[in-house]
Amino acid sequence: MHPAASPLLTDLYQLNMLQAYLGHGQTGTAVFEFFVRRLPARRHFLLAAGLEQALDYLEALHFTAEDIDWLRQEGGFTDDFLDRLAALRFTGNVDAMPEGTVFFANEPVLRVTAPLPQAQLVETRLVNILHFQSLIASKAARMVLAAPGAQLVDFGLRRAHGAEAGLWAARASYLAGFAGTATMLARKEFGIPIFGTMAHSFVQVHENETAAFLAFAHARPDHLVLLIDTYDTEAAARKVVALAPRLRADGIRVHGVRLDSGDLVALSHSVRRILDNGGLRDVTIFASGGLDEDALRKIVDGGAPIDGFGIGTSLTTSFDVPGLDCAYKLQEYAGVARRKRSVGKATWPGRKQVWRSFGPDGRMTGDVLSTEDDRQPGEPLLQPAMRNGRRLVPPPALAEIRERAARGLALLPESLRRLDATAVFPVTIAPRLVVLTEEVDRALAAHERDLP
Amino acid sequence: MHPAASPLLTDLYQLNMLQAYLGHGQTGTAVFEFFVRRLPARRHFLLAAGLEQALDYLEALHFTAEDIDWLRQEGGFTDDFLDRLAALRFTGNVDAMPEGTVFFANEPVLRVTAPLPQAQLVETRLVNILHFQSLIASKAARMVLAAPGAQLVDFGLRRAHGAEAGLWAARASYLAGFAGTATMLARKEFGIPIFGTMAHSFVQVHENETAAFLAFAHARPDHLVLLIDTYDTEAAARKVVALAPRLRADGIRVHGVRLDSGDLVALSHSVRRILDNGGLRDVTIFASGGLDEDALRKIVDGGAPIDGFGIGTSLTTSFDVPGLDCAYKLQEYAGVARRKRSVGKATWPGRKQVWRSFGPDGRMTGDVLSTEDDRQPGEPLLQPAMRNGRRLVPPPALAEIRERAARGLALLPESLRRLDATAVFPVTIAPRLVVLTEEVDRALAAHERDLP
Repeated sequence: MHPAASPLLTDLYQLNMLQAYLGHGQTGTAVFEFFVRRLPARRHFLLAAGLEQALDYLEALHFTAEDIDWLRQEGGFTDDFLDRLAALRFTGNVDAMPEGTVFFANEPVLRVTAPLPQAQLVETRLVNILHFQSLIASKAARMVLAAPGAQLVDFGLRRAHGAEAGLWAARASYLAGFAGTATMLARKEFGIPIFGTMAHSFVQVHENETAAFLAFAHARPDHLVLLIDTYDTEAAARKVVALAPRLRADGIRVHGVRLDSGDLVALSHSVRRILDNGGLRDVTIFASGGLDEDALRKIVDGGAPIDGFGIGTSLTTSFDVPGLDCAYKLQEYAGVARRKRSVGKATWPGRKQVWRSFGPDGRMTGDVLSTEDDRQPGEPLLQPAMRNGRRLVPPPALAEIRERAARGLALLPESLRRLDATAVFPVTIAPRLVVLTEEVDRALAAHERDLP
Repeated sequence: MHPAASPLLTDLYQLNMLQAYLGHGQTGTAVFEFFVRRLPARRHFLLAAGLEQALDYLEALHFTAEDIDWLRQEGGFTDDFLDRLAALRFTGNVDAMPEGTVFFANEPVLRVTAPLPQAQLVETRLVNILHFQSLIASKAARMVLAAPGAQLVDFGLRRAHGAEAGLWAARASYLAGFAGTATMLARKEFGIPIFGTMAHSFVQVHENETAAFLAFAHARPDHLVLLIDTYDTEAAARKVVALAPRLRADGIRVHGVRLDSGDLVALSHSVRRILDNGGLRDVTIFASGGLDEDALRKIVDGGAPIDGFGIGTSLTTSFDVPGLDCAYKLQEYAGVARRKRSVGKATWPGRKQVWRSFGPDGRMTGDVLSTEDDRQPGEPLLQPAMRNGRRLVPPPALAEIRERAARGLALLPESLRRLDATAVFPVTIAPRLVVLTEEVDRALAAHERDLP
């Protein structure tokens, strides 16, 4: 079994706790919720992503005979426990915000309702899956807002944190509104549109740039984009103009040029002039090289004639905020609501739902957080996704998720669409949830008093 | 084939360039080097890591029939090219700094010498592998320097960027000096020591903390660590004192307690007092919760009686610097040295070596960067790792890599061991490399003049 599919992609303490739960017959129904505790600086909303991979994981979860043998050799686990682990499958329910949904702090994005050992075991990998894709989708959304209408392409596999991060960053950015990716495997696995040009090394192995451009054009004539910054960008743009008629004679059209270094605003203007004066008005300019949403905004505001952008490290690592303060916490066990009260990490107890309201202009106006059995005005965001360990519906097409995200971004209050928003989206705690919290605290205090 | 092992974990442009290279018979020997262009703020040195996974990748590289069929359906690739791709294996050489080696900006960490199409194709995944593990090892090294002698444990799988990131972060931090990890799969795959306690949810599902502690102690009596911050940390410490005799009667020793929230320095002092007064002087205190190297240094400087630390997000995402400005660049093709001159991204040409000198006290004093065929005083850092696509030696034990890293950290100039060092380690460019660079530039200018 490949590491990414292994049930051992979890923390030791989960197995320690499972042995205690199973040994004491603590297999009652537990409810855990995944949520983000607080939004970091420069994130005024988040986009939910990763649900499909989370459901894949839950459907496939099982320990192989080899896993069990290995655990036996490790020691510390009883034979009875290992027998039960070998038989363990995920048989619970999942309710979740559909991928592409805008969400805010303290709102449950996903809820697991399952026998306690199952719900506990899956914590580590569920968080690992949901956190990363939501992180990247949220970062990508900022770039989409910063450069409306521009063609944004994920170029960041090489500096993503490993294989899965690279692959999933392509998916998460595409659903947030990117046009596509350079990652071949994301094309194969998810059908995401693929983009590619050429590298500096290609230019360097040829005697000169003109030879390199000609060789590349004949080898890959479709959607031909030439990289023009290896030596001198403006000189290279003039070479493209000189070459164009020769290529045209061979039936090859130069689709675009790519800039990857220097002052992109200034170079895009001078390159545009060179191309236009050379009769290449329809040749597009594509830019890359250390871009993030602030650079995009600056380029767009500066009126640079750039048609598309390749975005690397800042996207696939979510460079300014590479992690969210998120958690997967027990909210109910055996029918009784629970909460954690640790300093700075207290949680709202019980099974919860989020209702979202919209104003007369269609824009989001506020969310209400309450217990699941409450009724609040607005649209409930968590929907049934899995029952008894099986998906309720086949995975939606990425296009559908992408539309939901686009709609969400369009309906955000204008004040939250800015890169440096100061407004905070109103999330109200309903009275019913406040009352439940007080009840949970009172019950806990009573239990503690009863102690010998 | 699992995604992480797929040759399609690459950028489209690599395949585009390969088709051009193979179509024009450009299969001469290419030399590419992987290096970091500049050190980011708060990184005064880096630790090389990931070589073994890079060699695994190169040894296994091949396209399956299914990959080839898929590429054919995608279109744009010739049948001749796809036939050659199906037969492609990595048959080149690799020279590299051994894992655990301290390195600096502009120093080649790994050099690939192979037929151009092979050396080009592997760029994306090689960078993806080497960048991430070196990033995490370098971050972990800062934590090791900040808390000398403390037991540091990787708790960060859940917020690592996907499965591979979590697994490799455990490896990279262990080789940099961490004591171990909580990630089960890292234990299974790499034999890394494993640590685990209990989660707040375990406490919450029990009627009260005492019941939870008892249940856990009997289920997992070895190396028993109790989490004491779910409700009231000091009260929980008193419960541990009260429980200890009862557990002792059952042959169970409380090994430690864990704090996961609040003011760790203040709480560790008060908990230490409670434990000591209760006769539990040998019970250790373990702390976790949002720690990074600055927090560790502050806790250590504050004299907090904490014996070990669990480190999560700050480690596995390298939170303050989640990406390095690294590159894999062509240095030579068909026997002729090459360089890139793009603004801000110019490179030193040719096959290079790094020689490191040490002072009378054994500490590193400076590096010299020159061409491989030069001879400089000091210890050459790049060593042969692979010839003709095969490893020269079996992978070293992690313990050996860990020792090399420990030696490297010990031999760093004292000025570079501080978290906020301002000193810069001297890396000298040898005259021979300067001369070569001038020759490459002159040759390029001559070619450009010859153009029609």
